[in-house]
Amino acid sequence: MSNKPSLSTISRLTSLNRFILSNPLTNALLVNRPTNPSTTPTSKATMSSARQLTFIPGPIEFSDAVLQAMSTPSQAHTSPEFIATFQEALKNTRKLFKSTDANAQGFVLNGSGTLGWDIVGANFLNANEKALVLSTGFFSDSLAEALRVYTDKVDIIEAPGFGQTVEFHKIAAQLSEAKSAGAPYKLITITQTDTSSGVLSDVKGISEIVKKTSPETLIVVDAVCATACEPLEFDAWGIDYVLTASQKAVGVPSGLSISFASGRAIAKALAKEKPVAFYSSLKKWLPIMKAYESGAGAYFATPAIQLVTAYNVSLKQELLASGSIDERIQAHKVASDAFKDKIEALGLKLVPVSRDVAAHGLSVIYYPEGVNAGDLLSKIREKGFTMATGIYKEYKTKYFRVGHMGVAAVGERKKELDLASNAIKDSLAELGYKK
Amino acid sequence: MSNKPSLSTISRLTSLNRFILSNPLTNALLVNRPTNPSTTPTSKATMSSARQLTFIPGPIEFSDAVLQAMSTPSQAHTSPEFIATFQEALKNTRKLFKSTDANAQGFVLNGSGTLGWDIVGANFLNANEKALVLSTGFFSDSLAEALRVYTDKVDIIEAPGFGQTVEFHKIAAQLSEAKSAGAPYKLITITQTDTSSGVLSDVKGISEIVKKTSPETLIVVDAVCATACEPLEFDAWGIDYVLTASQKAVGVPSGLSISFASGRAIAKALAKEKPVAFYSSLKKWLPIMKAYESGAGAYFATPAIQLVTAYNVSLKQELLASGSIDERIQAHKVASDAFKDKIEALGLKLVPVSRDVAAHGLSVIYYPEGVNAGDLLSKIREKGFTMATGIYKEYKTKYFRVGHMGVAAVGERKKELDLASNAIKDSLAELGYKK
Repeated sequence: MSNKPSLSTISRLTSLNRFILSNPLTNALLVNRPTNPSTTPTSKATMSSARQLTFIPGPIEFSDAVLQAMSTPSQAHTSPEFIATFQEALKNTRKLFKSTDANAQGFVLNGSGTLGWDIVGANFLNANEKALVLSTGFFSDSLAEALRVYTDKVDIIEAPGFGQTVEFHKIAAQLSEAKSAGAPYKLITITQTDTSSGVLSDVKGISEIVKKTSPETLIVVDAVCATACEPLEFDAWGIDYVLTASQKAVGVPSGLSISFASGRAIAKALAKEKPVAFYSSLKKWLPIMKAYESGAGAYFATPAIQLVTAYNVSLKQELLASGSIDERIQAHKVASDAFKDKIEALGLKLVPVSRDVAAHGLSVIYYPEGVNAGDLLSKIREKGFTMATGIYKEYKTKYFRVGHMGVAAVGERKKELDLASNAIKDSLAELGYKK
Repeated sequence: MSNKPSLSTISRLTSLNRFILSNPLTNALLVNRPTNPSTTPTSKATMSSARQLTFIPGPIEFSDAVLQAMSTPSQAHTSPEFIATFQEALKNTRKLFKSTDANAQGFVLNGSGTLGWDIVGANFLNANEKALVLSTGFFSDSLAEALRVYTDKVDIIEAPGFGQTVEFHKIAAQLSEAKSAGAPYKLITITQTDTSSGVLSDVKGISEIVKKTSPETLIVVDAVCATACEPLEFDAWGIDYVLTASQKAVGVPSGLSISFASGRAIAKALAKEKPVAFYSSLKKWLPIMKAYESGAGAYFATPAIQLVTAYNVSLKQELLASGSIDERIQAHKVASDAFKDKIEALGLKLVPVSRDVAAHGLSVIYYPEGVNAGDLLSKIREKGFTMATGIYKEYKTKYFRVGHMGVAAVGERKKELDLASNAIKDSLAELGYKK
């Protein structure tokens, strides 16, 4: 792992500003934010009167209903109360990914997005089978690294430059060549939104290429920062596995790996003669998920009951409130467009080379010339907003990232995103920046 | 996996009694329980006015402070607030396992107890290396199954009968023979409390045998249902890896794998030439845990921020409130002894063959003759208490299990355990049982 990022930059940076949290002036900006008295943190580390609003690309701000569900009193994992919750959550997971295929299955596991990568390698690749990774940044490369644990034959096609997508003609050529040589790729991965670059890949377009050129290749989508922000038609586009995590636009605290597998992906996992993993083995999880979704308890590991309960609340009350995920996705597009317009109006430049390839769950923005990286995020933090540093190779000190997902961007607290963009504008002004 | 238990028995059973939850009479028993208005569940499945008290061997009842910490508003994983929380939690994890060895390291990961088993196989065993599993029930056997993913050479010594421990002379003989044959075991596993049988293994005694007979063998302790209930002296006994989970006596909702590794266990994990796992690889997690414990952020997967915050609260306010874990362990012994005395006074028989081999976090109890398994748990549930069925092979319909860990057994709500034992007594009487 040559390019594992150290996020200690932002840690050190923000440490410097901890004292500011107790500054009453900081509170002012937050005064209009709906507060939930039941969610007052009790640990010393979080007892600041003005807490930071989290505008990083996950974890995001959570709704009061979700936070309240996090404190659901204990339930047995096989109690009818929890079985009903998990059943509903698994059924609604189908709507999240737009699938009605009875052969497909959702998986909601104690873990993280990283666990999803491991599941891909451990279940859908046998040793020496070929995988093709399309890379638009750090997270695409990390997925490749996970796959290399399970096979030596991982090829990467990189985007021609930072902020760009992988060229279609290269994908088609690589798939064709492999097929002509009698060794088609068993799997291709698309990182729908690479959170390191903010680049959005065209999953539909790439899937069409795969279906035409190498239809036997399993299509895997890393949608960690894309689910509920970008369209994904699991059935219609012929996706085989999509993975996400709870703390992004799904709107639930971190701790859940959420994914969805097609019938043929599951068949591949079940056909493994000898398992190469235990915790990441879908063979183990499949009967558990099927049991809960059908209304019965089953055991392989104790599910994260409070997180699953919060996930169910988020699905029902927020993501699928209109009956479909489409409205939420559209709302994220609207919020993203408006935010990016404001950023560009300030004279700042986005990392994605055009709006067509810019993701809608976050904005990835170059620092303007003359503005020091640490200074800007520090000023913004003073105003009560936590934003994120860059994390991709030599570019990491050249840009910052703003998450705009969920309740504080498209939900009941969406005006907070306006406050966040004001904080950027004001901070730049204080640092002497002029357009 | 020949004996994976189906817990659907209790699911079906309890489903029959869901209507009883809305019966005001059911409320009466719970009326004195401290309630936390801030933790009123919001999801429909949990909106019953009288919720069940969970007296299974995990998840357990949680304190109000822990539940409140679960709803801590969002924090960035690299924010100074969360780094301070995680740092404190990792430092206190050392106290939980009684270690001051700077070469040892705690691991607090998004996962479950099952992930801990996977970590053992993926990090401490190379293909074809020999492991010895001591089995006192279902969970010991499950650990063996996890190890078999990584090596074909897993031997099991079973206890001579259900409710018994593995005989010391057999352990010594097996270790000696392997060593004499020039192929010593690389690893031995002890399931300190097997939650399927309630049997407590003598970790100290077994460790002494290992140190004397085969000192190079790594000692792994599954303490999922033992941590904070049974003594474990990591340094003094020479333990190499102990694994637990959040939802047992640690007193935190499910979703965290908590473990602690010795310097030589870590060295073995780091020496692996080629990783065989990604998510379960300690090589990946080690720098992350070291960073957070030293007060800096780092990234491999987004930590479960709210669960870690709740874990930190439980460690400080409950488990280590006296400064040491010893008092909590002693309290569990006292509560367990009193509960088991009451059970035996009713004429019921414990599964563990003697109190010396009976765990203190739960009681595993044979149904008395003439009392139908489903009927008893159903009656108990009517009274507002969820207890657990058996799960071990042919015995599973012959016994039930009562967890007595944490706040409702040794904490501020400990009188609830008395209510639970009364519920057993009254239910038996209603079913016509006489001593």
